[in-house]
Amino acid sequence: MILGLAAGICTTAAVVPQLWKAWKTKKVSDVSPGMFFVLILGLAMWTIYGFIENDLPIILTNGTALVLNSLMLYLLFKYE
Amino acid sequence: MILGLAAGICTTAAVVPQLWKAWKTKKVSDVSPGMFFVLILGLAMWTIYGFIENDLPIILTNGTALVLNSLMLYLLFKYE
Repeated sequence: MILGLAAGICTTAAVVPQLWKAWKTKKVSDVSPGMFFVLILGLAMWTIYGFIENDLPIILTNGTALVLNSLMLYLLFKYE
Repeated sequence: MILGLAAGICTTAAVVPQLWKAWKTKKVSDVSPGMFFVLILGLAMWTIYGFIENDLPIILTNGTALVLNSLMLYLLFKYE
């Protein structure tokens, strides 16, 4: 269904503006590392859940979000 | 399944440390409003999708995340 696809693209890509901002400004002191820790933990569990349930949309959306948010956590530690 | 539940709790509650940090420091200049715009759009679509599909877990997790992230967007504009 098209609505679920659009919803998945938005929630997966949401971190991109934050990644871009951190990359450009090199400033991350107001961003919470705790948010990205908990998010990455949740996304990793979703991805494993997707493999167990053999659900490709769950694997793809959460796997992509996992990579993007891990990159954001890396920038957080790099610039902090 | 317990893994899906734990995953859902993590991805839903992830914004709480960011909310707490913004509330305590009153500083949000490194946080991207774009991230929360796209996230809220996606979460709103997921919630509508949940209603259409009559899927209570999708409604509850995304509905809760929608409220929490809207609060974060409000703080972003309040403190910016």
